[in-house]
Amino acid sequence: MLRGGAQRGAAIVGSKMNNVVNSSQQSRSKVLTVENMNPHVKVMEYAVRGPIVARATDIEKEIKAGVEKPFTEVIKANIGDCHATGQNPITFIRQVVALCTYPDILMDNKEFPSDAKERAKRILAGCKGGSIGAYSDSTGVEVIRQDIAAYITQRDGGVPSDPNNIFLSTGASDAIKSVLKLMMTGKGGNEKAGVMIPIPQYPLYSATVAEYNAHQVSYYLDEDNGWALSIEELKRSLNEAKDQCIPKVLCVINPGNPTGQVLTRANMEAIIKFAYEENLFIMADEVYQHNIYAEGSEWFSFKKVLIEMGAPYNEMELASFMSTSKGYMGECGFRGGYCELINVDPDIHDQLLKSISAKLCPSVSGQVAMDVVVNPPTPGEPSYNQFVQEKMHVLSQLNEKAKLVTKLFNSIPGMSCNEVQGAMYSFPRIDLPAKAIEAAKADGKSPDAFYCFALLEETGICVVPGSGFGQKSGTFHFRMTILPPLEKLRAVLEKFKIFHKNFIQKYS
Amino acid sequence: MLRGGAQRGAAIVGSKMNNVVNSSQQSRSKVLTVENMNPHVKVMEYAVRGPIVARATDIEKEIKAGVEKPFTEVIKANIGDCHATGQNPITFIRQVVALCTYPDILMDNKEFPSDAKERAKRILAGCKGGSIGAYSDSTGVEVIRQDIAAYITQRDGGVPSDPNNIFLSTGASDAIKSVLKLMMTGKGGNEKAGVMIPIPQYPLYSATVAEYNAHQVSYYLDEDNGWALSIEELKRSLNEAKDQCIPKVLCVINPGNPTGQVLTRANMEAIIKFAYEENLFIMADEVYQHNIYAEGSEWFSFKKVLIEMGAPYNEMELASFMSTSKGYMGECGFRGGYCELINVDPDIHDQLLKSISAKLCPSVSGQVAMDVVVNPPTPGEPSYNQFVQEKMHVLSQLNEKAKLVTKLFNSIPGMSCNEVQGAMYSFPRIDLPAKAIEAAKADGKSPDAFYCFALLEETGICVVPGSGFGQKSGTFHFRMTILPPLEKLRAVLEKFKIFHKNFIQKYS
Repeated sequence: MLRGGAQRGAAIVGSKMNNVVNSSQQSRSKVLTVENMNPHVKVMEYAVRGPIVARATDIEKEIKAGVEKPFTEVIKANIGDCHATGQNPITFIRQVVALCTYPDILMDNKEFPSDAKERAKRILAGCKGGSIGAYSDSTGVEVIRQDIAAYITQRDGGVPSDPNNIFLSTGASDAIKSVLKLMMTGKGGNEKAGVMIPIPQYPLYSATVAEYNAHQVSYYLDEDNGWALSIEELKRSLNEAKDQCIPKVLCVINPGNPTGQVLTRANMEAIIKFAYEENLFIMADEVYQHNIYAEGSEWFSFKKVLIEMGAPYNEMELASFMSTSKGYMGECGFRGGYCELINVDPDIHDQLLKSISAKLCPSVSGQVAMDVVVNPPTPGEPSYNQFVQEKMHVLSQLNEKAKLVTKLFNSIPGMSCNEVQGAMYSFPRIDLPAKAIEAAKADGKSPDAFYCFALLEETGICVVPGSGFGQKSGTFHFRMTILPPLEKLRAVLEKFKIFHKNFIQKYS
Repeated sequence: MLRGGAQRGAAIVGSKMNNVVNSSQQSRSKVLTVENMNPHVKVMEYAVRGPIVARATDIEKEIKAGVEKPFTEVIKANIGDCHATGQNPITFIRQVVALCTYPDILMDNKEFPSDAKERAKRILAGCKGGSIGAYSDSTGVEVIRQDIAAYITQRDGGVPSDPNNIFLSTGASDAIKSVLKLMMTGKGGNEKAGVMIPIPQYPLYSATVAEYNAHQVSYYLDEDNGWALSIEELKRSLNEAKDQCIPKVLCVINPGNPTGQVLTRANMEAIIKFAYEENLFIMADEVYQHNIYAEGSEWFSFKKVLIEMGAPYNEMELASFMSTSKGYMGECGFRGGYCELINVDPDIHDQLLKSISAKLCPSVSGQVAMDVVVNPPTPGEPSYNQFVQEKMHVLSQLNEKAKLVTKLFNSIPGMSCNEVQGAMYSFPRIDLPAKAIEAAKADGKSPDAFYCFALLEETGICVVPGSGFGQKSGTFHFRMTILPPLEKLRAVLEKFKIFHKNFIQKYS
């Protein structure tokens, strides 16, 4: 980044700097510095795009500039970015979005099937002025919310869904932040809101908790038991936190990120009972609901389970989140997402609506992409066969890759990896020798980050250190996506095997 | 919104509710209520989509359902939503976005001009995996940032711009919040960050200040002087606030929203000097930079003025914001926007990058729309003539409407309206009789809201009460966009005239 004014001294620094009116016209310190910036933003971390990814990007530029490397390309397995790793878009999604974008010409184009045109016309009729360039309602285009409600109802075997309980968002992240924000107490010390999050977790949660100055209540997933969620651990973590915060909300990621486990229905029922007993609002991150691979694993929405448990659980408050970025579609760049609120106080609905209205609305093209996900071609429609074929191709490839990765990481001595039951990531555990831990310390890095940086420099493979997601003290992991194309993934895993062997030897 | 569980009592309410483990299986209060929710979100307001707009939407539904009204349609003049009020999209923008969305088929389509295809190819080459479905860098697609930097450099007569100082965002609102967030002190009482904002202002600012628990330092624009920004008033407001906060940032909206004034260069220089003396970070909301109508008005960017003032001002920190939603394009639904940071501490750049990276990236199709705005067809390119024609048509219509609105409001007795020099709004002042003020009080409304609700119910015209933007105590205003098509706008203004006359008579 450009440095402004090389002559600037750092003479007037300190927390009171902003109160000092400096009448001298000499160089002076910046108004906004790391010393006086928002301390809550300063402490937040987001490893998925952290320093290792910055280094990977630099290496890509070095390769372009002709710098010699022991590899020819960087493999970015750090982020669930499907299209970036070669997955093709689903044709029907792109057709509908393109039709909505430029209807004047494309509605008459014969290369676009009639079912795509019908969907586009219906959505445009729901847009103000018939244009996706108009703001939608802050909660999203009404017909799209209707389609989402219909999707949820069908998905959950008839449990009803109301479009008025749904709001669209800029990816699921935006919705998660919007709901979490409401929970804050606005107080400090032991009156902060307590937010229960799994460890390991997708770091959006810890980052948001830090940014809003809430209290993170960490419950550890049980690695020795396939990353299961144990109720005893929920209780332990909550009891230890009770004098440090006001517990408000239980966040669950299912299927798990980075851990890939799929909760059983019995486990979900126990979690819901726990939340009931402890009077917690449940936030269910269900963005990987299409990504289930393991035999015997079946995905249920928290809403379905909670409603079907009957009274008093069917009156509990729940927010469920979904995205266009994952599943079989992988449309990350469109930033489509939604949240369904269940049993939430109507006055809180109003407050949420007010709060999101200042953002005006989420991207309407992202909303259109979301619409196709919840309202895909049906049997008999012209696009049905191609759509199903494309969808199944992606999901069967992911299934194969999930099994391949699990198998291969478990074949490496000193590495163990729970089955990737769902989602898009493996999260293997690595045994690191004492000498490697010392070397990491000398290098000012956590041992897993030290390992991942070495991997990147030697092989070009970019993964995220486990410390970015949280892990039991003394254990080390990394998260690697299962997204690279099958052949490339095989090669990556072979390289990994060799790297790991050499690394262990070097530090033994 | 759905109410969950009709049997629920309100027996267990109160701030300590969340600490009470209710073992009874009877109905109990909600976990999250207005009583215990985030108090900072609770106090925030955003009038542009407030209760009057909700009522307008209800009236639209009533009309659809056959309810008799003294009008046949609701005219939503509450929000700068160009396409919603009939403006057509700029063809070239939609062509490039459509090409990026569905390149497989459309790149071979003869109805798309070669310059649109070239731009789409260049952008797609800058997207990971060649897809707008991949996440971009959190700051945005690199080639788009390059185009923005080139645009700014040309716009500012050669003052250089660095793509590394630019980040794209989900509309300008998102960028404004991202920068403002950094300024917070994380402290309460008189250690809160002081944020100087104009009154009247676009309520995003007051809403964000409330949400982040900062201290709003209100400086009043001078209505009697064409909504000019007076340095004496800046000083007055800051001096009065100094023992209540730590002043950090001066927000300026130019052209003004809702006030429509365009700052003179001399005025801008004085503002910059003030900010220098007081050690303030300048945030310049410049989203209406294409919307200048008044003779003699000329728009300058704060960056150009600040840099051209030379030392020490050319080292001052500044953030400037731009959007796809306004100007001649009015692409609100795409949620495109960017911010350029000038002279900002490199460590703050890093902190900002970290902070936005947890949101992953703004909508890539919104970024593509932004690219066309900064990189439009040039003379000699196939799309040039049509692009210029469409752009000029929108701007000349807006120009005409700005003059028409100013003239007509000033012709109504008891109403006065400063010239709409720029932006998209008129903000007339209305003299309300004492009886109307009493009637408003009895109705639990502010007098201007009372007036605007009466206007809506009697004429179908939806405007926003001045109290939503802030106004000098004892004065009353409303904001009306100048966006409806010319013929409709004429009819609206005639209706307005009659309504106003009747309203004044009724309460005299």
